[in-house]
Amino acid sequence: MKIENIDVSSYPNSRKKYVSGKLHPIKVAMREISQYPTVKIENGKRVEYPNDPVTVYDTSGPYTDPAITVDINRGLPRIRESWVEERNDTELLDDITSEYGRVRRNMPELDAIRFPMMHRPRVAKEGKRVTQMHYAKKGIITPEMEYVAIRENLDNEARGIKSHITPEFVRDEIAAGRAIISANINHPEAEPMIIGKAFAVKLNTNIGNSALSSGIEEEVAKAVWSCYWGGDTLMDLSTGDNIHETREWIIRNCPVPVGTVPIYQALEKVNGDVKKLTWEIYRDTLIEQCEQGVDYFTIHAGVLREHAALVAERLTGCVSRGGSIMTQWCVEHDCESFLYTHFDEICEILNKYDVAVSLGDGMRPGSIHDANDRAQFLELEVLGELTEKAWQHDVQVLIEGPGHVPMHKIKANMEKQADVCHEAPFYTLGPLTTDIAPAYDHITSAIGAAIISDLGTAMICYVTPKEHLSLPDLNDVREGVIAYKIAAHAADLAKGFPGAQVRDDALSKARYDFRWKDQFNLSLDPEKAKHYYLDSRRNAPDADDRFCTMCGPNFCAMRISQSITDKCGE
Amino acid sequence: MKIENIDVSSYPNSRKKYVSGKLHPIKVAMREISQYPTVKIENGKRVEYPNDPVTVYDTSGPYTDPAITVDINRGLPRIRESWVEERNDTELLDDITSEYGRVRRNMPELDAIRFPMMHRPRVAKEGKRVTQMHYAKKGIITPEMEYVAIRENLDNEARGIKSHITPEFVRDEIAAGRAIISANINHPEAEPMIIGKAFAVKLNTNIGNSALSSGIEEEVAKAVWSCYWGGDTLMDLSTGDNIHETREWIIRNCPVPVGTVPIYQALEKVNGDVKKLTWEIYRDTLIEQCEQGVDYFTIHAGVLREHAALVAERLTGCVSRGGSIMTQWCVEHDCESFLYTHFDEICEILNKYDVAVSLGDGMRPGSIHDANDRAQFLELEVLGELTEKAWQHDVQVLIEGPGHVPMHKIKANMEKQADVCHEAPFYTLGPLTTDIAPAYDHITSAIGAAIISDLGTAMICYVTPKEHLSLPDLNDVREGVIAYKIAAHAADLAKGFPGAQVRDDALSKARYDFRWKDQFNLSLDPEKAKHYYLDSRRNAPDADDRFCTMCGPNFCAMRISQSITDKCGE
Repeated sequence: MKIENIDVSSYPNSRKKYVSGKLHPIKVAMREISQYPTVKIENGKRVEYPNDPVTVYDTSGPYTDPAITVDINRGLPRIRESWVEERNDTELLDDITSEYGRVRRNMPELDAIRFPMMHRPRVAKEGKRVTQMHYAKKGIITPEMEYVAIRENLDNEARGIKSHITPEFVRDEIAAGRAIISANINHPEAEPMIIGKAFAVKLNTNIGNSALSSGIEEEVAKAVWSCYWGGDTLMDLSTGDNIHETREWIIRNCPVPVGTVPIYQALEKVNGDVKKLTWEIYRDTLIEQCEQGVDYFTIHAGVLREHAALVAERLTGCVSRGGSIMTQWCVEHDCESFLYTHFDEICEILNKYDVAVSLGDGMRPGSIHDANDRAQFLELEVLGELTEKAWQHDVQVLIEGPGHVPMHKIKANMEKQADVCHEAPFYTLGPLTTDIAPAYDHITSAIGAAIISDLGTAMICYVTPKEHLSLPDLNDVREGVIAYKIAAHAADLAKGFPGAQVRDDALSKARYDFRWKDQFNLSLDPEKAKHYYLDSRRNAPDADDRFCTMCGPNFCAMRISQSITDKCGE
Repeated sequence: MKIENIDVSSYPNSRKKYVSGKLHPIKVAMREISQYPTVKIENGKRVEYPNDPVTVYDTSGPYTDPAITVDINRGLPRIRESWVEERNDTELLDDITSEYGRVRRNMPELDAIRFPMMHRPRVAKEGKRVTQMHYAKKGIITPEMEYVAIRENLDNEARGIKSHITPEFVRDEIAAGRAIISANINHPEAEPMIIGKAFAVKLNTNIGNSALSSGIEEEVAKAVWSCYWGGDTLMDLSTGDNIHETREWIIRNCPVPVGTVPIYQALEKVNGDVKKLTWEIYRDTLIEQCEQGVDYFTIHAGVLREHAALVAERLTGCVSRGGSIMTQWCVEHDCESFLYTHFDEICEILNKYDVAVSLGDGMRPGSIHDANDRAQFLELEVLGELTEKAWQHDVQVLIEGPGHVPMHKIKANMEKQADVCHEAPFYTLGPLTTDIAPAYDHITSAIGAAIISDLGTAMICYVTPKEHLSLPDLNDVREGVIAYKIAAHAADLAKGFPGAQVRDDALSKARYDFRWKDQFNLSLDPEKAKHYYLDSRRNAPDADDRFCTMCGPNFCAMRISQSITDKCGE
């Protein structure tokens, strides 16, 4: 298998940079963008003033490191494997535990689509918990914690920018449940990253096939593509064919944490018949995915039997797939959700692999009309109760949030979540600030995502232009990621996150200097920026003209402005 | 001349509707979108429940009225001509006043590109002021005021939705300067609209050629296209060839108010040599454009000689074209700006045609770094002083705002503007909430625009994906308008604007009912929504499937949700 049609091998004028740890022998990957000098004419002579390179957060993994040749048939280097081993609290299993997984593995007709390498699954030794929260509560700073502390700071130290982020701070935030490092011991290919309101805002992308679409190669390409453009985590929401095999390919080749919604696959195992779902099938699915290396599970354990009646009060009912499945199950069986009643058992599975739980908002509003209603907020209270329970098991927790929310109701979401869920990181889908723009919901939701991130949401789940209409293709993934990079970065600026403004300042200086190439290279999408620029310069394709392409050569505000500055003296 | 390549003749499942005035014999244009019935199966029988049509604000003018055949060589029907005549305070001139205009008219080489009809210009009779503010202060409710009162309310009355908007309220807001109806007596083709924080948020689009681009036909097409998608006003920012003729074509065919920045043309008249600009040339340009029918002028009269030194303190200097021109002029001549020293005279010209002044923010920040700095806020204080002066002349006022502003500094902009400019309507460009996303600045700025509109900004100036890189083409205009319709509508929802949620609720109900066609038709861009949907349904192109195209047929949250509702009883 090959990744075709996309180039994820490099960014323009950039080099991969590795910063070494001080506590642990780790190398933290970053991207450094070099710049051209500023050119001035002084006393008739051309003088060059150098511009410092700019270091940016890099989610692309080994794909952009020319020293590493990635073969997706072998998967990425397993950078965390030795860290996990050295903790000496895990063991390798001889075989996979899940019955379903073993059946799939032994089906010869799947040979052609099965990931060709087999790694033995790892699990905590009897009686051990192996979560980052567990270590943090014990006062331990793991390599993962140091990694994210360095990663968040970029080159703040070299620039003399003060930062609150230290390995100790990371540990304390994780111990308190205010941040998580989602890092399954069976996904050692992923580079550690942190999700919490004291850190840079992160963004998740959703990919995955459905019965209407698409093949494994396409999904792997989307995953790598998502990382290339800046996705911090990735959810595989496949509901179509070969979910197990697709996921294996994705995880082995994904440098960021991977999440899933296990109920989707559980439902596939009973051929879509909700009534036939059982705890046992679900449990087997959890273990199957824990051993594959899924880093976090969305679990809709807050949807209770008693909430079902509230669905009828809404304009758009229950729009969460997991939420609607569990509600239907509760109604069909007229009993409490097995996700709720077995929640302790779930946590005891998760803490053996360090899989985080992302408590799903099964009652998220699917329309402006339903925002902040009873169904939504009652469920949120249950999520708060489950958060405390998960923490007792040292399981790391995210709380999922809406959905469709008008701007004036966003703040109440954040405040209520922080209050009832004890500041567990909030992870929201948008929210979309209006319902009336299908085909542009990356924009309706980027508005909401920026606002809620500024208020304290730790991770935002992207929405692509195809939301409500279709599954995203490669271009939609890119559009969605960039829209959400914008929202996340706008929030980082508004929060005064240490060093966030470095890139803005550098890009703006490049713009004012007419260093067009630097302007492109420092931007979130250098290729598109350059393309738009050159397109307007068809007749004079030199990308270093000393005027702005909006005004034209005769009429440039920035050039006039520079002549004023020269005149008035700097 | 013809408008080619674009179809602006109709919206799907929509009809043009005219609502009659009660005080004046006016017909207010709106768009009514019809819906399909909701289909349910009850006791094995198919039952249809009708869905009310939805009335939406319509900026497209006569182009979408099948009863009117628009010939752009003749211009649009002059609906306000009789209203103006009946006030009996204006007179027709035998010839145009501007010397430059007369010279252009008499150049045979321009015959081929000149708009073929000549309307005699109208001006206030000696000693009269003919502005909407003048009438409002006298307690008069003009047809324009009643028009906008009806227009803002859509079908609120029929729906029993309470609204604060009455003709009297409109009059009082205009008298107080908190709102404007920008309606030059020489642009009777335009349908009246109101800009003010108590009304629906409006959006402006910028078009216009530069030395690098484009012809008259293309600019007229962009203007009509902008109105079709929802632009409320339009600025012609041409700086290239044939500015005068291009503008005539645009105004005669534009159903929304048209704004310009007269200093651009004045500068063209002196071949781009800023030093040669004079008050006399500028004055002649104002009158030329007043008589053509420009509805509002951006005038950078707040840029003072003393501000020039502040430009050097900035990262990106002065990025406003008008601001940089005037700053340079002040520095070159070492004297105060003629726009400032002649401001009373300017107002006395404007109130003879009812041209509104949009006080330009020549010192708007061009980067996150420069937001809310001294240069910006000192100028804003001057704009406050000029606002009071303009109001003394009964000239209607807008205040232009930034620019690039991080989210946490947006509120200060709105508050300071409202304070020092006495609640004159604020009209902002975005603001862009980060600098790092050229090619996506419609999104960076839609975030800022939504936030500042919610806080009270009355009109937002769109930014297209090409901002900073090139001039927008037709597709960019569409993308920019939709992004800003989203921002404006999100703010209307957040402000609780009467009736704003009707469209959201209708679209969401259609979505939940699987009435796909209604979902598209009610959306801001029916064509694109439908296209994305059908693209995913290549193999089964029926747009009324009872499942969502994201989940696929086996796995639909909304269908499950409906079955739950059926089970639990509604």
